[in-house]
Amino acid sequence: MKLDLMAKSAKEASLRMRSLSSEKKSNALLRLADLLCDHKEQLLKANEVDIAAARKAHLSEAMIDRLSLQGDRLEQLAQNVRQIAAMPDPVGAIYDSQVLPSGLHLAKMRVPIGVLAVIYEARPNVTIDVAALALKSGNSVILRGGSETLSSNRALMAVVAEALQQSGLPEAAVQFIDSADRKVVEKLLKLHESIDVVIPRGGATLQRFCREHSQIPVITGGIGICHIFFDESADLEGALKVIQNAKVQRPTVCNALDVLLVHEKSAPVLLPLLAELLLKDGVNFRADSAAYSLLKPHAGAKVQKATQGDFDTEWLSLTLSIKVVPDLESAIAHIQEHSSGHSDAILTRNEEHSRRFVRDIDSAAVYVNASTRFTDGTEFGLGAEIAVSTQKLHARGPMGLPELTTYKWIGWGNNQIRS
Amino acid sequence: MKLDLMAKSAKEASLRMRSLSSEKKSNALLRLADLLCDHKEQLLKANEVDIAAARKAHLSEAMIDRLSLQGDRLEQLAQNVRQIAAMPDPVGAIYDSQVLPSGLHLAKMRVPIGVLAVIYEARPNVTIDVAALALKSGNSVILRGGSETLSSNRALMAVVAEALQQSGLPEAAVQFIDSADRKVVEKLLKLHESIDVVIPRGGATLQRFCREHSQIPVITGGIGICHIFFDESADLEGALKVIQNAKVQRPTVCNALDVLLVHEKSAPVLLPLLAELLLKDGVNFRADSAAYSLLKPHAGAKVQKATQGDFDTEWLSLTLSIKVVPDLESAIAHIQEHSSGHSDAILTRNEEHSRRFVRDIDSAAVYVNASTRFTDGTEFGLGAEIAVSTQKLHARGPMGLPELTTYKWIGWGNNQIRS
Repeated sequence: MKLDLMAKSAKEASLRMRSLSSEKKSNALLRLADLLCDHKEQLLKANEVDIAAARKAHLSEAMIDRLSLQGDRLEQLAQNVRQIAAMPDPVGAIYDSQVLPSGLHLAKMRVPIGVLAVIYEARPNVTIDVAALALKSGNSVILRGGSETLSSNRALMAVVAEALQQSGLPEAAVQFIDSADRKVVEKLLKLHESIDVVIPRGGATLQRFCREHSQIPVITGGIGICHIFFDESADLEGALKVIQNAKVQRPTVCNALDVLLVHEKSAPVLLPLLAELLLKDGVNFRADSAAYSLLKPHAGAKVQKATQGDFDTEWLSLTLSIKVVPDLESAIAHIQEHSSGHSDAILTRNEEHSRRFVRDIDSAAVYVNASTRFTDGTEFGLGAEIAVSTQKLHARGPMGLPELTTYKWIGWGNNQIRS
Repeated sequence: MKLDLMAKSAKEASLRMRSLSSEKKSNALLRLADLLCDHKEQLLKANEVDIAAARKAHLSEAMIDRLSLQGDRLEQLAQNVRQIAAMPDPVGAIYDSQVLPSGLHLAKMRVPIGVLAVIYEARPNVTIDVAALALKSGNSVILRGGSETLSSNRALMAVVAEALQQSGLPEAAVQFIDSADRKVVEKLLKLHESIDVVIPRGGATLQRFCREHSQIPVITGGIGICHIFFDESADLEGALKVIQNAKVQRPTVCNALDVLLVHEKSAPVLLPLLAELLLKDGVNFRADSAAYSLLKPHAGAKVQKATQGDFDTEWLSLTLSIKVVPDLESAIAHIQEHSSGHSDAILTRNEEHSRRFVRDIDSAAVYVNASTRFTDGTEFGLGAEIAVSTQKLHARGPMGLPELTTYKWIGWGNNQIRS
């Protein structure tokens, strides 16, 4: 289908979607969950096509793992959809109600945004997660997934279409751009008359491309250059545990630790212990000169001298940049300059320092004595998440169902006029 | 100053601004209000330069009125600033507090957005209103006013700088682009590393220019193609009053009525009465053929047959487009297609119709039996407004102090890790 017609039909569908009852939306999701299980065999076959192509193209095992729906992943996916179906419907709530001096009753009403466009990487589970979140929040959505998963996505979209049809929902509410052509994204980004928001999930190149070419509001995010500052007063034992968790529990994700800043008074004690601990996990270090001298005797070849770029890198791997700083102010200044505004933490027992860190670090999530790994829709109690925003308008951090809505003002009167 | 350096210094200032106490911000505003009165003479002189130039350039009297600070307008402006000073500070509030299963205490904290860029028309009062709102909400702001008011704006900015200096606030918190060159705006729109949001206040050309060229999130708005639907069951007397108010009370503003839709059963009664009423106010009509036949005998030369473009025009004058529709559905469909999403109203005594209108019309403000003229920050109890948003992300309708803030997530723990 032509892209502008697709967007137009998505907008028309959104007019119907926004007035659906919660029950009807939930039933459609439950139908979708059932159909994912019913069609397991054909979905797995379609997915095997992608996996075979990926192996032929010598994609990494990590990449292949991400695009796989094998094992019990389809059941898990169906379970996610059932959980989203069970969540409270954010749409229709009336709030901030007031009666103006003229007698006009004014309030805000929570409503769907309208038409979402979500551009994402080669992970077919995202197709279902995003479709379910969009439907539950009463939006239409246009999906554009990674070209490595086209076969899986086509099969999944057939199931989504079946669920929509059987539930009496407009089929144009969930549409998929069935093309690997990158120019299509550029065209998509101009359709501001039909599409209300673009959410790019992917690397820095995609984010920049959307920011530079879009005439539609874009919510950028998902890139985390995350910091932990180990303050002089931090609890050594607890801190080691937090740093280890933030770095190694799942190093390939955006809320994993990238840069450790260490107070100069603590560095001689912390760094040898940290090296011992993290070397067992396979971590290697990029250290500024002060940290390098302290780490070298313990980490040997696993520590390299950091270059400037190492403090502006989202590692997504078992590499950790380390810098020794003279005080809290230097740590804050470093983070203010280098953070991507995703998740940053301080480890301290000094109340005043934690207060200043929280005040001065302007990231989507700021932690005191906790791992950066918590930044996640499910951890934050939002249920699933559609993205993690690192820009400041509309939504910051994990975006769940409420973040896929907006509001309108309603004024109920009996012929009030303005004087 | 070079634009990128200006933006960088605004960002640096925003780091200080966001940690200022409410008292310090309010005191700076009270100082500004006093200085506006103290420097009245030189401000009026600077304003006279703009007025003289405007007369020489044969600008309209309406335009000259808008750029004037003469009479008691400076005192009024100072009074606005004092009112903003007295408003509650939105910054720092902690809300949506929860304790996660791990014991991590998670909450949202309201914080300033950071650096605003506001582009506006030839109205020097906006310079002060926007500066006051930005300071009160802890933001930095870069201002770019209409070239017709450069002399007034320079004088006002000198006063702002004096107030900032005397109050110990960073002078770079309020900066002004002292250039009439339009290319400067294009450059400004690329500085996404320093500027967090662009708010264009002005006509469709400016809005489109910003949407097409900006790499910074833009909040578009202020363009109102506003509708009233007169339903079959409307209260005739009350409705006439509301239509008159919406059209003539202040026709040059964005929330004034542009298009009246009339139920075909009511048209023969309503339109002659309406013609009689509005002709006295100097209104002229653009009517579809059904409305034309009904209006012609009463309005004579004051009614013309509407062309299609007349239903997509923000009149900003005493012109009113009128169309007869067969039913509620047609009215809703027309508004969905033609509204700019600002303010639309239904006049009805049918509960079910009002419910459906409210549900299906997705504008920033939707009214039942009330004038569209109410869409305004002061009317809505927000105090002053920085703009009226007609896009759907972040804020819709009038934007006051809370809409100039965002939030960050704070997690306070005792060494929690994610499992």
